Amino acid sequence: MRITKPTLLVNETIARNNIMRMAYKAHRSKVTLRPHFKTHQSAQVAEWFREVGIESATVSSVDMARYFADAGWKDLTIAFPYNPLEAEEVEKIAKRINLNVLIVSKAALDHLHHHVNAELGYFIKIDVGTHRTGLSPDQTNELKAIAESVNAKHQLKGLLAHAGHSYKQLNQNGAQEIFDESMVAFSKVKAAIGRDDLMISYGDTPTCSILENFSGVDEIRPGNFVFYDVMQQSFGSCDMSDVAVCMACPVVSIHPERNEAVIYGGAVHFSKDFVMEGDRRHFGKVVRFTREGWRSEPIAEVNRLSQEHGILRGSSEFIKSLQIGSLVGILPVHSCLTADLQGYYVSLKGEKLTKLNRAV
Amino acid sequence: MRITKPTLLVNETIARNNIMRMAYKAHRSKVTLRPHFKTHQSAQVAEWFREVGIESATVSSVDMARYFADAGWKDLTIAFPYNPLEAEEVEKIAKRINLNVLIVSKAALDHLHHHVNAELGYFIKIDVGTHRTGLSPDQTNELKAIAESVNAKHQLKGLLAHAGHSYKQLNQNGAQEIFDESMVAFSKVKAAIGRDDLMISYGDTPTCSILENFSGVDEIRPGNFVFYDVMQQSFGSCDMSDVAVCMACPVVSIHPERNEAVIYGGAVHFSKDFVMEGDRRHFGKVVRFTREGWRSEPIAEVNRLSQEHGILRGSSEFIKSLQIGSLVGILPVHSCLTADLQGYYVSLKGEKLTKLNRAV
Repeated sequence: MRITKPTLLVNETIARNNIMRMAYKAHRSKVTLRPHFKTHQSAQVAEWFREVGIESATVSSVDMARYFADAGWKDLTIAFPYNPLEAEEVEKIAKRINLNVLIVSKAALDHLHHHVNAELGYFIKIDVGTHRTGLSPDQTNELKAIAESVNAKHQLKGLLAHAGHSYKQLNQNGAQEIFDESMVAFSKVKAAIGRDDLMISYGDTPTCSILENFSGVDEIRPGNFVFYDVMQQSFGSCDMSDVAVCMACPVVSIHPERNEAVIYGGAVHFSKDFVMEGDRRHFGKVVRFTREGWRSEPIAEVNRLSQEHGILRGSSEFIKSLQIGSLVGILPVHSCLTADLQGYYVSLKGEKLTKLNRAV
Repeated sequence: MRITKPTLLVNETIARNNIMRMAYKAHRSKVTLRPHFKTHQSAQVAEWFREVGIESATVSSVDMARYFADAGWKDLTIAFPYNPLEAEEVEKIAKRINLNVLIVSKAALDHLHHHVNAELGYFIKIDVGTHRTGLSPDQTNELKAIAESVNAKHQLKGLLAHAGHSYKQLNQNGAQEIFDESMVAFSKVKAAIGRDDLMISYGDTPTCSILENFSGVDEIRPGNFVFYDVMQQSFGSCDMSDVAVCMACPVVSIHPERNEAVIYGGAVHFSKDFVMEGDRRHFGKVVRFTREGWRSEPIAEVNRLSQEHGILRGSSEFIKSLQIGSLVGILPVHSCLTADLQGYYVSLKGEKLTKLNRAV
């Protein structure tokens, strides 16, 4: 298909390599890979996981669970706190597939027990230091109350954590330290509630990319790694050549006097996440397209974004090499948010890859 | 309809008042209001403009032009630099309605002349100080070349500017100063190309909200004012009670020990624009729902956002008043980006308001 407007291209080979590498690492480490599908949100991309033997996945919303259940996925965990207002939808999905939900309080569990009349599993969300949500290992009374609350149809499967603060620790030592602290937190919880049989579900993309040994963990749930992005590269999770998505953007205006050019491609295509390099903020790396895809060496940056405009800044040589109506590639800062904004992706073969549509 | 997940509510009365106030101001100032529809992107909301006599509008993409042409709008300006790759689509739309496009270089105009075989109008984009795109009044050779390039089907209608830098000038003096500088810039361009008959199209929401007199201007193109938002309120463009949209978000987790609560509502619902108040960054203001809508006095803030989570911070009294499964209202920081992320809106009467769907 002909590209005339901002379009997220997916390099299937790179994405499949990213999947394979993580699947192999999980296998060697004897943990289950339950990849988070919130990054791609695409039934077609999900098939690439199935082809390396992945049968279970993680999603971040009830809508996403329904979408992947419709696409034939039989074992999903909604890694977002159980929302009482969606009890009815949760019940419907739980009647179709093996569904796990996330419990962050006794009140939420009580609601689940009383309002969802279907077999399902649940994990207790443990706050291992991110302080977003979940129960602290010190909340022993609440943890015990949850562990003691029994319902014939609902099975307490394990403890789950997302070490979101690993995104701020940029090296292997940092990732290892957070991993070790998390294992201590899980042990404390197991001891507090007197249950040694619970599964441990852990892992974000930086941790799972950087560490090799997941001893103490039963399953890992990285998501971003399928596509990676410039932020992950800056953390050391991947190389720039592992980034599997690139936005193709038309050049619409060239300003050699200030070494800038304007592309069709703005906040509504990329989102507004940025990366700091020194005291310089940028919203994506500019790369050149080749016959086969794109060269992963950045040649310029996206300096500013407004709703539909992106402003590139580069060398005068680069800016002068541009023509209006030509396409430049942008490696996104945060592929999860960029991918979420797309109605569809396009593979390098020109195929449209469909995904969950928020309008529904 | 029952709200179970993050849903952008529109208070039609407030939005209609915002429209009426701007239409009346334009009328008194003897300028045409050509509102920017990029904020709402909804054919149903557009009807509220039509009902006060607005017949022309601005859009920010070719897709949006097609959408509103389909909805019966006969006079649209695409206020984004002409994208050569979309020439074919531009031609199709220009054959159906009165379409204006934006020219930022002689190269773009040449492409338009050679590739779009339909009657249309065009404006020259003038950079009045934002340095995003457009021609500087000092680029006299390029401006003259554009003015002298004639095509029987394409009519040079005027000069257009977006004073995006007004978003950084937070008071009436600042807005007036930028307006006056812009008028000087337009005069310089008119003199340089020897055309005194050109229309002047100007105006963003802060300028059009704050100023009363638009002498020298023929049309204004504010967009955000239909909904307004917390950022505009912080600029002095509006009061908090003028904000016409509010995200209804389920509370999913409560953390009284740190005066925080977690809502279902994150970066994929709000976007990641933020407002600084002193050295405190926030992503939206929390308000309480009433039987009729919401109270516009903020009672807490959205302190952090991840993909699907929002973390509220407030007084211990406020946090303790929450229950999981209840709904809180969030006035968004930047309604254009928040509205863009929605598949639809819901009116306070419970009607679904449809909008442009990016998936198409």
